[in-house]
Amino acid sequence: MADRSLIFPADEYRRRVGALQRELGHAGLDALLLTTAPDIFYVTGFLTRFWESPARPWFVVVPAAGDPVAVIPTIGTTLMGRTWVDDIRSWDAPDLVDDGVSLLADTLIEIVPARGAIGVPMGPETHVRMPLADHARLTERIAPRRFADATAVVQRVREVKSEAEIEKIRATCRIADTAFACVPEFARPGGSLVEVFRDFQIALLKAGADWVSYVAGGAGPGGYGDVISPADDRALRAGDVLMLDTGAVRDGYFCDFDRNFAVGKATEPARRAHAALDAATDAALNAIRPGMTARDMHRILTGAMHAEGVTPAPGRLGHGLGLSLTEWPSLTPKDGTVLREGMVLALEPGVEIGPGQIMVHEENLVLRAGGAELLSSRAPAELPELAG
Amino acid sequence: MADRSLIFPADEYRRRVGALQRELGHAGLDALLLTTAPDIFYVTGFLTRFWESPARPWFVVVPAAGDPVAVIPTIGTTLMGRTWVDDIRSWDAPDLVDDGVSLLADTLIEIVPARGAIGVPMGPETHVRMPLADHARLTERIAPRRFADATAVVQRVREVKSEAEIEKIRATCRIADTAFACVPEFARPGGSLVEVFRDFQIALLKAGADWVSYVAGGAGPGGYGDVISPADDRALRAGDVLMLDTGAVRDGYFCDFDRNFAVGKATEPARRAHAALDAATDAALNAIRPGMTARDMHRILTGAMHAEGVTPAPGRLGHGLGLSLTEWPSLTPKDGTVLREGMVLALEPGVEIGPGQIMVHEENLVLRAGGAELLSSRAPAELPELAG
Repeated sequence: MADRSLIFPADEYRRRVGALQRELGHAGLDALLLTTAPDIFYVTGFLTRFWESPARPWFVVVPAAGDPVAVIPTIGTTLMGRTWVDDIRSWDAPDLVDDGVSLLADTLIEIVPARGAIGVPMGPETHVRMPLADHARLTERIAPRRFADATAVVQRVREVKSEAEIEKIRATCRIADTAFACVPEFARPGGSLVEVFRDFQIALLKAGADWVSYVAGGAGPGGYGDVISPADDRALRAGDVLMLDTGAVRDGYFCDFDRNFAVGKATEPARRAHAALDAATDAALNAIRPGMTARDMHRILTGAMHAEGVTPAPGRLGHGLGLSLTEWPSLTPKDGTVLREGMVLALEPGVEIGPGQIMVHEENLVLRAGGAELLSSRAPAELPELAG
Repeated sequence: MADRSLIFPADEYRRRVGALQRELGHAGLDALLLTTAPDIFYVTGFLTRFWESPARPWFVVVPAAGDPVAVIPTIGTTLMGRTWVDDIRSWDAPDLVDDGVSLLADTLIEIVPARGAIGVPMGPETHVRMPLADHARLTERIAPRRFADATAVVQRVREVKSEAEIEKIRATCRIADTAFACVPEFARPGGSLVEVFRDFQIALLKAGADWVSYVAGGAGPGGYGDVISPADDRALRAGDVLMLDTGAVRDGYFCDFDRNFAVGKATEPARRAHAALDAATDAALNAIRPGMTARDMHRILTGAMHAEGVTPAPGRLGHGLGLSLTEWPSLTPKDGTVLREGMVLALEPGVEIGPGQIMVHEENLVLRAGGAELLSSRAPAELPELAG
């Protein structure tokens, strides 16, 4: 489309607001206050990398009925004005005396009855993106109105992706597929991980990523130590296992999957680990159905890895994704979130190969009525070998 | 260095912790609780793009005396173990039942006397990166210990950069200089802003950026509408003014400056706007001295633009930078922050050219005893013209 700042037709956003309003109704809440980039993008289509600046808070209020109201710094009014949101109130931020608190309080007082409750996501995987002292001031200003937890309101709506959203995530996954296919061109023994990360990011951009919000990885003899480190200057050597993981972004939607490579000829333990991860992924892809829970998938993945004779790595074995690199639910023993049709998930089983050596494999899928539909192109069953 | 995950020798971090502890002492605080990426990187050297995942909270506690304690998800212990921090406590996050609250509460209770106060940045330009409900639980758990505002503790220390930090920011500015010099190679009439943004990010990576956390810009006939929008598909045309702005990152340190270009021959209003911005920047670079305030610089920049016969654009006219794309202070009429030797600042005057048309110019500097030392290579006084 000519103006990519809107991303979707207004109807998509109206549908989302309607769904949020139904959940607000069920929860007995009179409005929803949103402060983070993904929540505000979800409701409005307001997409900017300017969130990288922590200087200014941004607010969107979704009333129990009617259209959302944006209460934002003046610097964002032009861009917000291109979205479907009509009611845009702004102040000249940053303002050391009153950084939007009065404007937001007045808006909430206008929208919410005096004994009403305003939902704010305050549970797991959330944070309130505004100064804590201003949140306390706001709480006083709006009394007797009060804030209440609205984590479930947002999560139950956002976690089920529309077909339009699924197409966006699929497109971003294709971009990562294309970039991963280029890895053998630039990852070679003697080259450093710094260079590999740089070339991988360039490959993602050339394949169509708008930007690359996340690249991590690791390389080490027979396995790597963790999956969140930035690149170091160590040269790749034959016998290493190299992993690259990315959250590229296109039209505001993330992919999140990784690929493993043997540098030179794969060692037997690395081949076995990769085969076990492939088998566990198969087991999960074949088993997953709407109505199962996040913890069911943890059990299936763990069980499949044990059946393969390998030791699962600690930590969660998958998660949601879409408007963020990671979203709820978490595939852990404690997460009873019910999996529903339209959820987009990363399956991320990991195994311990040796002390301080792990291998993690990741695929992205959308859950359909009949089971998993892959969004990433499935990794080859055999650990690929980079020219030695 | 071989392991870039540490970035600086341990002495640099010890010095920082010592400075924070002196401020804690002056403020009568018994510890400092940090939750955000730049604050935690500042104290520990823990650098990862994994902050992109909102799933897990991370905590570092700086006691009034002694070394910091990291209370972090298990997934980060390998990387944190490579920093100078010895006391690392971890839990298997995300945990829907207790996501680090008990472990953090126990740590604070161990470190802080019962009637003590724990500083948390909760003022302007801050947020607490943990679920609000968990913050409330934590507040109960640590009573009678209490949380108190520590915004000034962190800001007075972090805002004065060490020579080692200044070298890092200078290096990142050089990377952006190199990439800006390549713009004429890829920005041409007929090409879209999407393509220009992609090529600009590739140029930043090739010039040595570890990653590109921020690119924004705009293009339009005679000026652009805002400075925070993502790229659109509109083709560049002769007569456009193109602006590109970036926060590239190298070793965890940002640059933040922009450059303007005329597509084809520059129009007279665009040339005048650029010349006025250049003159205002000169005025500010010549005038700035330690002991002046942020609002003094706003007045000087505004006065210089009026003297040039142009209308200043609304909003702040500069800010700090370093570990984030933007840091305090804000060059606004309300910010009385005293400018000190070692502060790194972006000067960012903007002018209104016509309705919905602005031009913004930005340079980065470090404040020395005798005045400004540029970190960005000064933009040419005349608006550069891209081949038409």
